[in-house]
Amino acid sequence: MKIDNFSTQIFETCLYSRDLEAAKSFYVDKLGFTLYTYVPETLLFLKMKSGMLLIFNPDKSKNKEGLPPHFAEGKQHIAFNIDEEKYEKVKEELKNEDIEIIHEETWPTGSKSFYFEDPEGHVLEFVPASVWD
Amino acid sequence: MKIDNFSTQIFETCLYSRDLEAAKSFYVDKLGFTLYTYVPETLLFLKMKSGMLLIFNPDKSKNKEGLPPHFAEGKQHIAFNIDEEKYEKVKEELKNEDIEIIHEETWPTGSKSFYFEDPEGHVLEFVPASVWD
Repeated sequence: MKIDNFSTQIFETCLYSRDLEAAKSFYVDKLGFTLYTYVPETLLFLKMKSGMLLIFNPDKSKNKEGLPPHFAEGKQHIAFNIDEEKYEKVKEELKNEDIEIIHEETWPTGSKSFYFEDPEGHVLEFVPASVWD
Repeated sequence: MKIDNFSTQIFETCLYSRDLEAAKSFYVDKLGFTLYTYVPETLLFLKMKSGMLLIFNPDKSKNKEGLPPHFAEGKQHIAFNIDEEKYEKVKEELKNEDIEIIHEETWPTGSKSFYFEDPEGHVLEFVPASVWD
């Protein structure tokens, strides 16, 4: 089969975090994600314009009944797309929220992307789609 | 800040797998992903219409120099979007590739989604976006 004939994107991406209160403060209060569902100590679902960021307590999602269990431990990495013309502005907004930028990279295309961490230590990035052209 | 003012989607989602040859056979040869980069034992980058699926050997990505390290262990979960009208067709295609469907769920919206696993045991799903409306 050819997945492009059926699907355009990954619509649900999961991160695993035990402190969902801290995740909620960070993703909802600081980054301004739209809260879709929050079940304390269990899950935090966040809606983007196109797709969902699902944050699970791995101790709960590992032992899920009904749906297939899933979980992970570690420092996961995800990247959000950003228009090149909004790149400097989003960097500024993060600084205003006291979020530290841990690395900035200049890619072979000439585009830049930058990295920061969530409270669990997951590695987040804002990246222009053009990096992958 | 309000992330929707800057970003529309998660553009890079990462899975961690040690057997990248098996991952390549599964994602490229069976699911038909477009291969972007493959570095044996290190990384496998796959391109979708909108966004990237990045598969890393965690032993390598954990000790990366230059870029921030990241890694995870476990059974991660991701979901690909699917048009409702192509739902049965994609199920058929997976069966033709001898991929077992491990679960099918009917959601409160009435939409259905189904689950299957990659060679590493990561839990994949095809889900209509309408599930999240």
